[in-house]
Amino acid sequence: MTAIKQQHPIGVGLVERQYVTWTEPLPLDGGAALAPVTLAYETYGTLNEARDNAILVLHAISGDAHLAGWHSSTDRRPGWWDAMVGPGRAFDTNRYFVICSNVIGGCQGSTGPSSIDPATLVAGQEARCYGPRFPIITIGDMVRAQIRLIDHLGITELLAVAGGSMGGFQALEWATAYPSRVRGAILLATSARSSPQTIAWNSIGRRAIMSDPRWRGGDYYGHEAPSDGLGVARMVGHVTYVSEVTLEAKFGRTFQSRDAPHFTLLPEFEVESYLDYQAATFNARFDANTYLYLTKAMDYWDLAARYGSLDAALSQSRARFLLLSYSSDWLYPTSESLLIADALRQFKRPVEHVEIASTAGHDAFLIDHELKRPIVTAFLESLMAG
Amino acid sequence: MTAIKQQHPIGVGLVERQYVTWTEPLPLDGGAALAPVTLAYETYGTLNEARDNAILVLHAISGDAHLAGWHSSTDRRPGWWDAMVGPGRAFDTNRYFVICSNVIGGCQGSTGPSSIDPATLVAGQEARCYGPRFPIITIGDMVRAQIRLIDHLGITELLAVAGGSMGGFQALEWATAYPSRVRGAILLATSARSSPQTIAWNSIGRRAIMSDPRWRGGDYYGHEAPSDGLGVARMVGHVTYVSEVTLEAKFGRTFQSRDAPHFTLLPEFEVESYLDYQAATFNARFDANTYLYLTKAMDYWDLAARYGSLDAALSQSRARFLLLSYSSDWLYPTSESLLIADALRQFKRPVEHVEIASTAGHDAFLIDHELKRPIVTAFLESLMAG
Repeated sequence: MTAIKQQHPIGVGLVERQYVTWTEPLPLDGGAALAPVTLAYETYGTLNEARDNAILVLHAISGDAHLAGWHSSTDRRPGWWDAMVGPGRAFDTNRYFVICSNVIGGCQGSTGPSSIDPATLVAGQEARCYGPRFPIITIGDMVRAQIRLIDHLGITELLAVAGGSMGGFQALEWATAYPSRVRGAILLATSARSSPQTIAWNSIGRRAIMSDPRWRGGDYYGHEAPSDGLGVARMVGHVTYVSEVTLEAKFGRTFQSRDAPHFTLLPEFEVESYLDYQAATFNARFDANTYLYLTKAMDYWDLAARYGSLDAALSQSRARFLLLSYSSDWLYPTSESLLIADALRQFKRPVEHVEIASTAGHDAFLIDHELKRPIVTAFLESLMAG
Repeated sequence: MTAIKQQHPIGVGLVERQYVTWTEPLPLDGGAALAPVTLAYETYGTLNEARDNAILVLHAISGDAHLAGWHSSTDRRPGWWDAMVGPGRAFDTNRYFVICSNVIGGCQGSTGPSSIDPATLVAGQEARCYGPRFPIITIGDMVRAQIRLIDHLGITELLAVAGGSMGGFQALEWATAYPSRVRGAILLATSARSSPQTIAWNSIGRRAIMSDPRWRGGDYYGHEAPSDGLGVARMVGHVTYVSEVTLEAKFGRTFQSRDAPHFTLLPEFEVESYLDYQAATFNARFDANTYLYLTKAMDYWDLAARYGSLDAALSQSRARFLLLSYSSDWLYPTSESLLIADALRQFKRPVEHVEIASTAGHDAFLIDHELKRPIVTAFLESLMAG
C-alpha cells in the first residue's frame, strides 16, 4: 500500500469491495420480487458524526462499485473515476464519505443474472444461475436496492448523488422518488429518458448477443460465453460513446500496417483493431446477460411517464441540481440536459447547467476532468455550507 | 403495362433488366483481375443522334440497376429512384437517356461473390460460387467496369453522372479519373472519403456477419444464409441512415403493444420491431458477402490519397458539379460536401452546392424529392444548353 500511495500520492490507496445481503424480497417495478439481494459496494473517506457528508456515486452501464483506488498493488488501473475521488480531489475524501455500489442486474458482485437462482437450491439438484429467468429490472429497482444500502450505512440524507449516463438516470430517480433523502444531484451527460435512437442502439446490441448461438437462450454459464455477440454490442456502444473528432484525431484513416492496404476482408484500419480490442477487453470483464438486463433498464427509463410529464416529475424534487453536458456528446446531447434544467427552473428549483467544451463525445464525463473538477468542487462545498 | 401506366401515368412503365458480359479480364486496384465480368443494367429514354444526352446514375450500397419503373405488374414497388426518373421528371426520359447498372461485387445481376467462380468450372467438379475467393474491389474498379458499359452503349461522353452516398463516390471517381467522359456530376449526401466513423460502422456490420456461424467462412451458398449477422449489420446501417428527429416522429417511445411494457428481454418498442422488419426485408433481397465486399470498397474510398490531396484530385476534373447535402444527415454531413466544393472552387471549377433542409437524415437523398427536383432539373438543362 505504501508503494501504491507513493505512486499515486493523493489517491485513496488500497480499497476493498464490501458486500451486504438482504433476505427480505426487493419488490420490482415489473411485478416480481428479488430475494436474496446482495449489493457489492465500496466506500472512501469517513462518515462524519452528523452523518451529513455522504455522497452516493452511481455508475454507468459498464461501470461497477470500484470507483476509486486500487484493489491490489498489481492492478493495472485504479477505479473508474479515480481522478475525481480522493484526498484533495473533487469528491474530497478528507471531507466527504463517498459510496459506490454495483447496480442490481450487474456482474461485479451485486445480484444479477449470473447469480445463483435460489429457486434451484433444492437438495439433489444442481444449483443454476438465473440466466434468462432473472427478472427484468428498472432504474427504479436499482435505486430501491441502493436505499437499503444507505439505510444499512445509517445515512438518512445524502449530501449528494452523482452519476453520468445510466448513473445520471439513477441520480434523477433518487432526486424525484426520494426527495427527502437527497440534498444535491450531480448529473453528467444524461437524460430524463431513453430516446428511440438510444433504444435502437441497445436493441441492436441485444440482438447481436441473443443471436449468438453460444448465448444458448441465456443459459451459457458453465459453457463458452457469447463473446461474438457481446463483442458486436460493445463495438456499437463504443462508437456511440466517442465523437467523430476523437476517431479522426486518434485513428484517421491510418492502416494497421502503417503503409498500404492489403485488400482483404479482414480489418485494415487502426480504428477497426481498436474496436476489436474494445470488444475483447469488454468480454474479459463483463457478462452478456447483464448487458441485456442493463440495456433493458435503460430502455424503460422515462421519468416523465410515471408522473405524466417531466415538469410533474421534477417538481417532486427538493435537491439542488448541477447538470454537466458535453458539447461533442451526440448520444446524450446538451439538449437533453436543457430539458431537465428548464423543467426545474419552472418550479424555481436551484439548478446550474454547464455545457463543457470537449471533443471526447459521451465518454467525456469519464475522462475529461480538468473543466468539471472545479465546478463539482464548488457545488459540493456550497451544499456542505447548506 | 397499360394498367401500370394508368396507375403511374408519368413513370417509365415496364422495364427490363439487361446484361452485358466481357470475357476480357477487368484489372482491379487490388492487383487481381476479374473475368468474365457481367454488368446488369437498365436504360430509360432514348439516346439521341448526337449521343450527348446520356446520364449514368450510380447506386448506393443497397441499391441496384432497377432505378425506375416496374419489372412486372405484380411488383409492390417501382425502382429505387422512380420519383426522379421518367417523362417530365427531373431525369426527364423525354430528353435524356438514363442508365443504371448494378456495381461489380453486387448481388443483383452483376458479377459478385455469389457468382460462379470460373476457376471451379472444371470437368467432373461441382461449380462453386466465389464466396470469400471473390477479389476485393474498390470504387475505382466499379467505375472501370462502368466505362466498359458506356463504351458498349456507344457513348463517348456522358452528359452527367449522378449518385448519392456510395453512388456519389462513383460519381466523383468518374469526374476525376475520366474527366474527358463526364460533362456534369451530381453528388448527393456523399463524401470524398470514408471517415473513421463510417469505417467503424462498416466494420461492425462485417464482424456481425463473419461471426455468424452460418457465414461458414463465406461459403454458405446452398446452405442457410447468415441472416442474423446480415440483420444486425443492416440494423446498424439503418440507424445511421435516419435522423433522431425521424425516429422520434415515427416511433417515439411507443410500445409495440400500444399500452404498457411487458417487462421482457424481447423487443418492447415500435422502433425495435421496425428495425427487425428492416433486417428481415434486407435479408430477403441481399447477399451477405456482397455486404462485406461493398462496405470494404467504401472503406478504401479516399479520393485524396491517390492524388496526394483533395485539391490535386479534384483539379483533374473538367465537369460542372452539383452538390446536394442534407441538414440532418449525420453520416455524410454537409461539411463533407463543403470540402469538395471548396477544393473545386480553388481551381475555378464550376460548382453549385445546396444544403437542403430535411429531417430525414442520410436517407433524404432517396426519399425527399420536392426540393431537389427543380435543382436537378435546372442543372441538367444548363448542361444540355452547354
